[in-house]
Amino acid sequence: MDFEQSYSEYKRVIDEHLKRALLDGEPDLLYEPVRYILFAGGKRLRPVLLLLACELLGGNPFTALNAAIAVEIFHNFTLVHDDIMDKADMRRGIETIHKKWDLNTAILSGDVMFAIAYRFLTKLEVKRFNEIVDAFTKAAIEVCEGQALDLKLETSFDVGIDDYIEMISKKTASLIKHSVKIGALIADADEGEIQAIESYGLNLGLAFQLQDDLLDVVAGEDFGKSIGGDIVNGKRTFLLLRALQRAEGKEREILLRVFNRDGVDSSLVPLVRDIYYYYGVIDETQEMVKLYTDIAINSIRVLPENNAKDMLIWLANKLCERKI
Amino acid sequence: MDFEQSYSEYKRVIDEHLKRALLDGEPDLLYEPVRYILFAGGKRLRPVLLLLACELLGGNPFTALNAAIAVEIFHNFTLVHDDIMDKADMRRGIETIHKKWDLNTAILSGDVMFAIAYRFLTKLEVKRFNEIVDAFTKAAIEVCEGQALDLKLETSFDVGIDDYIEMISKKTASLIKHSVKIGALIADADEGEIQAIESYGLNLGLAFQLQDDLLDVVAGEDFGKSIGGDIVNGKRTFLLLRALQRAEGKEREILLRVFNRDGVDSSLVPLVRDIYYYYGVIDETQEMVKLYTDIAINSIRVLPENNAKDMLIWLANKLCERKI
Repeated sequence: MDFEQSYSEYKRVIDEHLKRALLDGEPDLLYEPVRYILFAGGKRLRPVLLLLACELLGGNPFTALNAAIAVEIFHNFTLVHDDIMDKADMRRGIETIHKKWDLNTAILSGDVMFAIAYRFLTKLEVKRFNEIVDAFTKAAIEVCEGQALDLKLETSFDVGIDDYIEMISKKTASLIKHSVKIGALIADADEGEIQAIESYGLNLGLAFQLQDDLLDVVAGEDFGKSIGGDIVNGKRTFLLLRALQRAEGKEREILLRVFNRDGVDSSLVPLVRDIYYYYGVIDETQEMVKLYTDIAINSIRVLPENNAKDMLIWLANKLCERKI
Repeated sequence: MDFEQSYSEYKRVIDEHLKRALLDGEPDLLYEPVRYILFAGGKRLRPVLLLLACELLGGNPFTALNAAIAVEIFHNFTLVHDDIMDKADMRRGIETIHKKWDLNTAILSGDVMFAIAYRFLTKLEVKRFNEIVDAFTKAAIEVCEGQALDLKLETSFDVGIDDYIEMISKKTASLIKHSVKIGALIADADEGEIQAIESYGLNLGLAFQLQDDLLDVVAGEDFGKSIGGDIVNGKRTFLLLRALQRAEGKEREILLRVFNRDGVDSSLVPLVRDIYYYYGVIDETQEMVKLYTDIAINSIRVLPENNAKDMLIWLANKLCERKI
């Protein structure tokens, strides 16, 4: 069985459902940007995970489609508002909404995406609807809290590794954790099964974000993101924070310039990358990605053996080895 | 029985519940602005209406408190984001969040308020939870659509009275309609009762917004809003649109300056007000407020007689006579 092909198949079903779901919607002023961002590509990771979790635990993934697109729409809402806050002009190789349209359009189409996500959630016809809305809402709150922590990290001078891990737990991992939980709830899973799949989601989310930070520094090609963007923007990533704990002398000075956003441009990126390599930060990040991935995979060992489980294991390994 | 005192009592219970509900919440960066805006006053109209609708239809309003604060928190979220879009510096006599903090804080604390509103909704322990989430979500989507229509009106040169009514139906009246509907759902009302209370809410919402537009022009005192602000900002209100249909010559030219935001300052407000009076627009708006209020009240005539119903009738009359 070809996992790659199977993933594409899940993705295609999600894309089609999303397309049908967002076909209408007035006024255009509001819905055109929504369609623009949602049809601009994306891995559809969260909805695929949700469907797989549902299937793994004996549910019918087709009954979970509205929940799958709800988490994808919600995720895209967070991208739209985050891009405003980060003043990012590009996303997935195209202009961000606030850049292509304007600030007000980006705020408001983000808001309506948040609401639309709930609309698809309410279309679910499932027994444990209450718990599903609850899980979704918990994720939404934690994502906002994570973004607030991220903004705080960006302006604070007293930032530790713990702060960083708390931030990504909420900003990135929470939605992944709750996506698989929702899949499990739709499958009417028992408490132990839900805990197992939540642990998978949380640890996968942590691995995913660390890998993202890593790729910003070491990726060989550019896929809509500029290499070293985190360094140029002085993002307080795990790599920067860990390197700052270790580096001394002239190298420390350079990292502090990155940390303080003190005249850093892309010409400095190779040097910072070398410092990361020299102090073992690249290796350590790769090991952490591997560690969280292994925890994720081990969490679901107890769950039934089936195709969906094999896919979830394959996907975890793939994400931690991905190059984009 | 003193309605005024009774209203204060409902408001007090809501305020206390809101205070308890928002006591904690981290990080401060995110929750301080939330508490700031929510404790800055406000009539608590939507939650009071929700509780009264519940009571009128035989429900226990105390079981509806989490829904009541959900609609209030959601309403305040829309104010925070609308104030960004309108570039408003003041609200209820205090600085708006984006003015007191910054843009990012206002976007993000708005977002989390949206999510928190759902959190309180999910705390409800009621039979018709699914329908309640559905009604709340419909309101959220319509409010966004209404705001988009409002932004469109502000930049369009082809704006009719119909466009205006559609806009306020969604931007203002929808949340009021759905608030009372949620109250009725908590009371497990039947279809006919729900329709009656929805009609009350919708028409009350329309009357409320028209009265708001009117007060901007004719209010005798300033309560945190500047008089004639709509005129200075060229807001396309019912008054302006109707006056433009009627005025001729020099007066029409002045109204077009308002419409086109062509160098209008507060010195022009008395003149525009006189034009509104002269062309009967003030009288007509007052009549429309009265008309919608009467429809609202008539809608609930069929419902049981009790204290809550008397309060809803009193409240409708009071809102259409209010001076602030």
